[in-house]
Amino acid sequence: MILAIDIGGTQFRLAVVSPEGKLIKVVRRSTDVDAGAGWMIDQVLSLSTDLCRCFDVVSAGIGFGGPVDFVSQRVINSTHVAGWDDVNLPGIISGELNVRAVIDNDANAGAFGEFTFGAGKGLKSIIYYTVSTGIGGGIILDGRIFRGSNGNAGELGHVPILLDGPLCACGNVGCLESLCSGPAIAARAAYEEHGFADRITAKDVFDLAKQGNGGAARIVRQTADYLGIGIAAAINTIAPEMVIVGGGVSKAGRGLFDPLRRSVKSRVMPVHRPFVRIVRARRGDHSVLLGAAAMASSLD
Amino acid sequence: MILAIDIGGTQFRLAVVSPEGKLIKVVRRSTDVDAGAGWMIDQVLSLSTDLCRCFDVVSAGIGFGGPVDFVSQRVINSTHVAGWDDVNLPGIISGELNVRAVIDNDANAGAFGEFTFGAGKGLKSIIYYTVSTGIGGGIILDGRIFRGSNGNAGELGHVPILLDGPLCACGNVGCLESLCSGPAIAARAAYEEHGFADRITAKDVFDLAKQGNGGAARIVRQTADYLGIGIAAAINTIAPEMVIVGGGVSKAGRGLFDPLRRSVKSRVMPVHRPFVRIVRARRGDHSVLLGAAAMASSLD
Repeated sequence: MILAIDIGGTQFRLAVVSPEGKLIKVVRRSTDVDAGAGWMIDQVLSLSTDLCRCFDVVSAGIGFGGPVDFVSQRVINSTHVAGWDDVNLPGIISGELNVRAVIDNDANAGAFGEFTFGAGKGLKSIIYYTVSTGIGGGIILDGRIFRGSNGNAGELGHVPILLDGPLCACGNVGCLESLCSGPAIAARAAYEEHGFADRITAKDVFDLAKQGNGGAARIVRQTADYLGIGIAAAINTIAPEMVIVGGGVSKAGRGLFDPLRRSVKSRVMPVHRPFVRIVRARRGDHSVLLGAAAMASSLD
Repeated sequence: MILAIDIGGTQFRLAVVSPEGKLIKVVRRSTDVDAGAGWMIDQVLSLSTDLCRCFDVVSAGIGFGGPVDFVSQRVINSTHVAGWDDVNLPGIISGELNVRAVIDNDANAGAFGEFTFGAGKGLKSIIYYTVSTGIGGGIILDGRIFRGSNGNAGELGHVPILLDGPLCACGNVGCLESLCSGPAIAARAAYEEHGFADRITAKDVFDLAKQGNGGAARIVRQTADYLGIGIAAAINTIAPEMVIVGGGVSKAGRGLFDPLRRSVKSRVMPVHRPFVRIVRARRGDHSVLLGAAAMASSLD
């Protein structure tokens, strides 16, 4: 059995996963942002120890919601929770549980999860987007997570889309994330369309569009167009077999995917059009856990 | 010795290249657009036969200025010269000269030339742009030309930059090529700045900017910004060790590269900033010939 850990900004999960990608047991906790990293690590260790008592765990995989230095296997930092700077989390887990542990950022883990046990199963190359509070990206080439020369390839959420777009969390302007993350979709709706409350959510926008609201439909079309530009750029560059979109925003389903597929088809080079396959992540909220497990299982 | 052939829209070249990448002999001819592909193939065969009489040629490599199906080793077509549809050029060369032959598009060949014998020598991963009549791209990963799942990866000139930009030769709007190719730079200058003649060239624009012309300087800054967006997207996605820019427009030198480096630095994710290396192609007009030779030499 493999212990899988998914550490996000709003919650963290632990799971026991079989080598075939079956979730044997899942435990979920809310993140206490004020309590900081130390509290979270204590929680993770205590829950892990409990799980290791009940199951024969041979290795652990961690998907972390923030930048990770894969080579040194350390968390770089977290923009959500204080205290994560330069933490050797796999070392801590490994020391406590006496199993090998591996860490990567959650977008890479999610990509690997969908590739190994989800929509990309059986393929060789995929691109994965997780569209939620932010936009993360992961690239799988020849069956392996592609990291580039400095370990930070696949930052598909920070591809520039609008020359003078909104300020992005990364410090640049007009990144895909600054336009199409859940909060960005909501912010565009509140700002660009009259009659929407400031506290409107991305889910509200998709729901209203489905009910025929013209303003919401405009925001959805624009979202699909921006996201389509980013995906078209990635397809022209990488020519993957499949593009998989996960994360909270992907739950909008066809309301998002129908205009998104049209947008990508109209933006990619003609030579790529016959190959465009854009699908929703099949393992939903569990892509990261499953990818973390798959990474850990490749340690053995 | 290797026979290298570079077939472009305005001229074609043949060279005898040593295994170390030395150009032993180069022959250049102007393309007769009206005479079509048949005439060009005859010319290439006749010049090749002459070169093979003087040198001990063991294989031939071809860089073609248009789409090539690498798997079937056939030219797909040419937008410049009629008659190139579905031509098995390496088969023809191979049959006539009795040597093995290989073909790829000229951007991939140029990338491989710079990687093997130019600015990217000794590295493992580079991205190459050739900015001239169009914009081609080539990606080298782990020492090999990266082709993606359908053979058409690396189309970096057709990454969408402007949501509602000019119509591109590929049929889409706002592609990098539609804004930053030589003719596109000239067209923007003629259209956006008063007092420029319709027949202004990209070279004129860079020359005028150097002489202090404000309108030309604006066009150059805009060119660097657009190109910087495309390169930043590629760096965020692929994280190569180096970005190499060749083609006629790269001859503008620091007038282009200084604002381009600033633009890329301001557009890439902060985590990539320390790794940004953007250099001019070192083998200039010979990148394609040298890459074609390097491809042919890897046949043996």
